[in-house]
Amino acid sequence: MADALTVGQLAAAIEARSSGVLVVEVRGTPDRPIDRVAPLESAGPGALGFLSNPRYRRAALASDASAIVLAAADADAMAEGGAQATLLVCTNPYAAFAFAAQALAPETAPPPGVADGARVAPTARIDATARIDAGAIVESDAVIAAGAHIGAGAYVGHGVHIGERTRLHPGARVMADCRVGARCILHSGSVIGADGFGFAPFEGRWVKIPQTGRATIGDDVEIGANTTIDRGTMGDTVVEEGSKLDNQIQIGHNCRIGAHTVIAGCVGIAGSTTIGKGCQLGGAAMILGHLQIADGCVISSGTLVSRSINERGFYTGFFPFMKNRDWERNAAVLRQLDELRKRVRELETRLKERPEPPGAARDDS
Amino acid sequence: MADALTVGQLAAAIEARSSGVLVVEVRGTPDRPIDRVAPLESAGPGALGFLSNPRYRRAALASDASAIVLAAADADAMAEGGAQATLLVCTNPYAAFAFAAQALAPETAPPPGVADGARVAPTARIDATARIDAGAIVESDAVIAAGAHIGAGAYVGHGVHIGERTRLHPGARVMADCRVGARCILHSGSVIGADGFGFAPFEGRWVKIPQTGRATIGDDVEIGANTTIDRGTMGDTVVEEGSKLDNQIQIGHNCRIGAHTVIAGCVGIAGSTTIGKGCQLGGAAMILGHLQIADGCVISSGTLVSRSINERGFYTGFFPFMKNRDWERNAAVLRQLDELRKRVRELETRLKERPEPPGAARDDS
Amino acid sequence: MADALTVGQLAAAIEARSSGVLVVEVRGTPDRPIDRVAPLESAGPGALGFLSNPRYRRAALASDASAIVLAAADADAMAEGGAQATLLVCTNPYAAFAFAAQALAPETAPPPGVADGARVAPTARIDATARIDAGAIVESDAVIAAGAHIGAGAYVGHGVHIGERTRLHPGARVMADCRVGARCILHSGSVIGADGFGFAPFEGRWVKIPQTGRATIGDDVEIGANTTIDRGTMGDTVVEEGSKLDNQIQIGHNCRIGAHTVIAGCVGIAGSTTIGKGCQLGGAAMILGHLQIADGCVISSGTLVSRSINERGFYTGFFPFMKNRDWERNAAVLRQLDELRKRVRELETRLKERPEPPGAARDDS
Repeated sequence: MADALTVGQLAAAIEARSSGVLVVEVRGTPDRPIDRVAPLESAGPGALGFLSNPRYRRAALASDASAIVLAAADADAMAEGGAQATLLVCTNPYAAFAFAAQALAPETAPPPGVADGARVAPTARIDATARIDAGAIVESDAVIAAGAHIGAGAYVGHGVHIGERTRLHPGARVMADCRVGARCILHSGSVIGADGFGFAPFEGRWVKIPQTGRATIGDDVEIGANTTIDRGTMGDTVVEEGSKLDNQIQIGHNCRIGAHTVIAGCVGIAGSTTIGKGCQLGGAAMILGHLQIADGCVISSGTLVSRSINERGFYTGFFPFMKNRDWERNAAVLRQLDELRKRVRELETRLKERPEPPGAARDDS
Repeated sequence: MADALTVGQLAAAIEARSSGVLVVEVRGTPDRPIDRVAPLESAGPGALGFLSNPRYRRAALASDASAIVLAAADADAMAEGGAQATLLVCTNPYAAFAFAAQALAPETAPPPGVADGARVAPTARIDATARIDAGAIVESDAVIAAGAHIGAGAYVGHGVHIGERTRLHPGARVMADCRVGARCILHSGSVIGADGFGFAPFEGRWVKIPQTGRATIGDDVEIGANTTIDRGTMGDTVVEEGSKLDNQIQIGHNCRIGAHTVIAGCVGIAGSTTIGKGCQLGGAAMILGHLQIADGCVISSGTLVSRSINERGFYTGFFPFMKNRDWERNAAVLRQLDELRKRVRELETRLKERPEPPGAARDDS
Repeated sequence: MADALTVGQLAAAIEARSSGVLVVEVRGTPDRPIDRVAPLESAGPGALGFLSNPRYRRAALASDASAIVLAAADADAMAEGGAQATLLVCTNPYAAFAFAAQALAPETAPPPGVADGARVAPTARIDATARIDAGAIVESDAVIAAGAHIGAGAYVGHGVHIGERTRLHPGARVMADCRVGARCILHSGSVIGADGFGFAPFEGRWVKIPQTGRATIGDDVEIGANTTIDRGTMGDTVVEEGSKLDNQIQIGHNCRIGAHTVIAGCVGIAGSTTIGKGCQLGGAAMILGHLQIADGCVISSGTLVSRSINERGFYTGFFPFMKNRDWERNAAVLRQLDELRKRVRELETRLKERPEPPGAARDDS
């Protein structure tokens, strides 16, 4: 935990991090000390809470948080309700809360330098402000920029470029010739630039197509634990700036992930697919190869996308769960859906052949 | 392979490990030596086989196993059939077999101490009976309890607590401040306590919410290879005692996995979801975030759970597979299921408008 | 990038690698230098392009590639069109392109020997032509055959056998007693031989069944980043020769994967399942346990296979995606599909009870 900040100092920190667009006002005592964020229910003195939804006003009123980030309308209601907490009124309380949490949990930069037990090739260039932890390996001709931090047991291959203030957590690995931008976070076990999956069939076996492209990661990208991003076959696999990838994701060769796209855990994206900018992919979604997904698309969890999507929108395709015995009955019908449609068509035909009863004129909608 | 035990010694070992509730009797020669377990079909002299199902009595009779673990009813039938093997009659043959297999394959504890090439911070506390292998890294203020074994290249972060007799296999990683209970097994490449996936949207980009909680793992938990369990946002992500997690699983931040729950491979559980005690989740199941799953639920493989489940039960939701051409036909109808229902409703309406033929009174069920 | 080869030299290299069955002829100048492969659109002088489909003849004609691999029919059309590139005519252009790409990107073998900072047990046997990189660990009684390359931070357990010219990329891990054949490639973070997932229920908890079998990997197998292949319970988990596994795959204990089968990313195969030879499994497919899948089966991405497949064929089972509002409507009907069928049956019964209109004899198809 960090040293405490007053609510007023926190408001200033939010303003600084958001370029001055978030804080509306501080209602109540601005000099209360805050040393952490906490859920409203478990917040005590010293904690900053967060009211995201008018539904939780009661919980906010009952909370022992010293201060609460919230929207103006909620602040008015809280003030009427006799709120004890200092109210930090913001236009976008969730983003303000995120900035406040950052101010309260600043990254503690380790001392710069190469730790005992790290192995750095003589031709690698390590900025004097960068940090290489024990057990890390940096290969020949790699470049580690200012303020970067290569964690214990992490691997930086030949010719790799790691941008300023980027952090590789323990055991993250970047293969030869790949590039990672500035301020990225690569979590443990992530692998950037393993070979893509490319084989040509030949006489009953599979001939490997060398994967000579790279993986390039833009600035401000976060890559989750054990996520894998393959290098391109000839060109590059690209993750654009500001994208956030959760754990256990697979990105195939030659993919391009648009800027500021978020991808939840366990997603797979097959090779040569382009995901637009600002998309949101739910957990365990699967996107087939050679597709184009338009900017701003939202894909539900568990959805398999088998065709390109040209239009921004919200797309879904998973089997709704139910009690197993219901599923068994419904799944049995599902296997004969085409036949069921034929039976309905047949009924329609038969009924059409019968004379309508008199006076039965009706609309078909 | 271990030294051989006689069938009688094995029976005693099963009794000791199960607190005396499993063994009914030993029928036949108790002093045959057993040095391994084996499937009935390939078992030879010295092997202990296992009869799980009356269906396999013939295979058991034909087996060359020196002894067979089985239930009383099967033992009677086997004896009538002229079984050559010594019969180890147990109330729960499968559990008895597991205990026997344990007795035959005891963990060989490595010599205690810190191997050459391991790196242990001066402030870490390593019990004198613990073992740290080459290439492992133990950071400052970490605690490694008695009999624990930190494998080659494994990582124990700052302030982490590893419980008694817990084993980290090569390359398992526990991030700062997390806790792992006693007698746990963390397989290679598992990552405990990477950052949860939390971002607030702000002006077209995503602002990271620091993940300052921990991941805490109860006693007797097993965590599979390359499985990831994220740390909490503010509070903890919790895996309760006795749970068993297979490989390639993702557990999001703030989740709680109930005691003695088993989770098969490739499952994803999104953030802030609680799974009850004694649940069984099939492979590649996906549980969305902020849900509650009741104790004792069984979820089929491949099922996406999109709502809380309040009632113990067996739940399923996957698309049944079929020949591709059948799938194409059925999937086409599935896309128009709502329309099909309308057509059926329409037919019902039309038919209702027709006079019933005389004498056609029927029941509607 | 490698040194340049002429088109003629490339043709000879393709012949050598394919045992002389692929190259038909070289049309045009055979002595143009080629130093890389490239997509037709971005290829420039010195690049070898690849025409896979008559549809792209126009792009091939417009390409600045110095040479193009293609089929005879395409070559005739290209020649008529006034192609500038040298035409490398092959019977199987895709395979020929793969061999050409291999010839242009030869593996550069690192100098043999054990690097500083690698740890090799005294009883391990390392061939004099093998290479062990810094941070790698080779345990007692392991065998590393000729030309093998154990990458940085990779792990080779006790008694493991690594075949000739096999490469473990940084952080790949092979657990005790497992075997990996010749010319295999194990990518970063892959784990071969972690414990299978086997537990017997006993009084509300789970008793571990020791996993004493091995994982054995045949020759010419490629295993993707962060893929996991568990060891067998008593016998072995087997991946036969020539199989290619992508990233993030899970293979459960006691499975057998047939020769020359390809498995795309994120697939899960539960325990004791046998996949035939020459199968193709699409990404995120899930195969349940104790099944048999016939040789030559093709399984679509996202398909859950819940029963054995005895007949070679193309099988599919995923929910087609759609706009979310359409999905909600269709999924609601899907939950009542069995009821819908009953309603159709009811309509059929009622209609049968009505007298047919005169002259309405029809066929039922």
